[in-house]
Amino acid sequence: MLFKVFLKNCTLIYYQRQRDLSKLSKLGGVFSASLSLFSLSKSSIDTSQFMAEPITSMETLSKNKDDMKTKVELMILRIQAEFCRALEKEEEQGNKFVIDRWQRKEGGGGITCIMQNAGVSSVIHPKNPLVPTIHFNYRYFEVKDGDKIHWWFGGGTDLTPYYLNVSDAVHFHTVLKETLDKHGMQYYPMYKKWCDEYFYIPHRYETRGIGGIFFDDLDNPSQDKCFELVTDCADAVKHSYIPLVQRHKHTPYGKQEREWQLLRRGRYVEFNLIYDRGTKFGLLTPGARYESILMSLPSKAYFFFNFRNGNTCISLTKVPLKESF
Amino acid sequence: MLFKVFLKNCTLIYYQRQRDLSKLSKLGGVFSASLSLFSLSKSSIDTSQFMAEPITSMETLSKNKDDMKTKVELMILRIQAEFCRALEKEEEQGNKFVIDRWQRKEGGGGITCIMQNAGVSSVIHPKNPLVPTIHFNYRYFEVKDGDKIHWWFGGGTDLTPYYLNVSDAVHFHTVLKETLDKHGMQYYPMYKKWCDEYFYIPHRYETRGIGGIFFDDLDNPSQDKCFELVTDCADAVKHSYIPLVQRHKHTPYGKQEREWQLLRRGRYVEFNLIYDRGTKFGLLTPGARYESILMSLPSKAYFFFNFRNGNTCISLTKVPLKESF
Repeated sequence: MLFKVFLKNCTLIYYQRQRDLSKLSKLGGVFSASLSLFSLSKSSIDTSQFMAEPITSMETLSKNKDDMKTKVELMILRIQAEFCRALEKEEEQGNKFVIDRWQRKEGGGGITCIMQNAGVSSVIHPKNPLVPTIHFNYRYFEVKDGDKIHWWFGGGTDLTPYYLNVSDAVHFHTVLKETLDKHGMQYYPMYKKWCDEYFYIPHRYETRGIGGIFFDDLDNPSQDKCFELVTDCADAVKHSYIPLVQRHKHTPYGKQEREWQLLRRGRYVEFNLIYDRGTKFGLLTPGARYESILMSLPSKAYFFFNFRNGNTCISLTKVPLKESF
Repeated sequence: MLFKVFLKNCTLIYYQRQRDLSKLSKLGGVFSASLSLFSLSKSSIDTSQFMAEPITSMETLSKNKDDMKTKVELMILRIQAEFCRALEKEEEQGNKFVIDRWQRKEGGGGITCIMQNAGVSSVIHPKNPLVPTIHFNYRYFEVKDGDKIHWWFGGGTDLTPYYLNVSDAVHFHTVLKETLDKHGMQYYPMYKKWCDEYFYIPHRYETRGIGGIFFDDLDNPSQDKCFELVTDCADAVKHSYIPLVQRHKHTPYGKQEREWQLLRRGRYVEFNLIYDRGTKFGLLTPGARYESILMSLPSKAYFFFNFRNGNTCISLTKVPLKESF
């Protein structure tokens, strides 16, 4: 029961992004090749541990195994499988993830420049209000400009609890901090701040959750170093989150907690539909697969007028702006 | 029980709009003075039938009783009171409307031009899935440009049923058509088309509901004639809608109908947060009162992944594009 909603909402969503591409000389348009990695059929060869066949054919992957796109695609499939299996283990009724695979043709017509984008984006909305919602998103971008290739990584992991549990928050942020600190002490403070700023809901003067890390345009010191950092962050997702699931999945809750959870999910909907760049640009793309773009929305949400829940609300929404984590 | 949700969601929402104001010579910015007409205290003099005191003081209203802003404000208060009372009459448990009154200071600082805007905007989300949702919005705009005053009217009424009832749809559109036909045979086809286009959800290739009428920039043949048209449209709301409430409010429904209703309300949320201009510009305004702007959202909504409900969905969402009403 607890993880019923999990299984509906964990999939890869289509993501598109606008970036300062002024360094590119000829730019007719930027399109992102969307990628969703689940499949109903198991793959035949070395992808046996994965939950899905890669989007790229095995032949192409084998031929280009040193290409960063190949490395990212295989890393993503591994992360996805590990994370989903770890969640399935916490599920009592043996439910498995709903699997959804799709490909989208890049738009043609006047496009002189193609942006390729391989990545994973997952949102988990648990049924138990004591278990926080997690969102993570890691991807690699490549833009061809004549013979030149511009590349960068982007991503992040952030947590949206319904009730503030300081020990959870400290655990979550500590895992992220320790992961990034291995790559340099500058990353965590910078990416934590970026996350707090990105997930801010201006019209409510509150953040979506209690933050985490968020970054974009990561292209130094080297492609391999960036890939290591992103892989470590993606690997850290399960360590940051699964313990919180284990801690709280058996905590009993009632109608009041569930109502508060659904009301907070309304805020999640507000953020994603009004401010989130991935959603916004995704839906504006002709031929966009809206179900995948809107996949990040919770199954149920409340929008009550002038709802007040005293200090729960205040302490929760002011948290990420504090420096304590 | 039936109208519990009614009472939460019928109020005036803040509305702001961008318009081609190229005819104005000096335009630093356009701000809309928001107006919400409910109050907890009953007014003392000739406003006794109203549900709230006017925003403008009685003294100012008396002094300027031929001014269009005065006429619109009083018309709105009358429409609001009549519509709310008509709905309250259909309510079984004697529930009354939640009343909410607020004023917003126009932004200053570099503004050379102030747009004033008096109007009403209401959304009714009934609990019974057999009773459609109605939204209506009628208002008057005035922009001062030096000594010159530019004015226009805008508005509309549209219906969002959860189950298509052709007889309801015909009644609804017929009332609107007959109302507009009295002012000229050109209005209904034009405003019906405008409505279908405005309430279209591009990423889903479907409309929000079954349409109605929608217009903007109405400034001819004369201010008085425009006021008459708008007043007639606002008066027609209750005739177009109350009969549908009476027809269906006792129709029994079950979990399946309620689920479908909440799923369709998810589409309503998508439209309002992603595409609606009033919501978008409202939230971007510094100091915006978000609760009033988001008032149009239903209290509860579902967002299920890849939900399919066979022909119910198709017949409902393709309806407004047909020419049959």
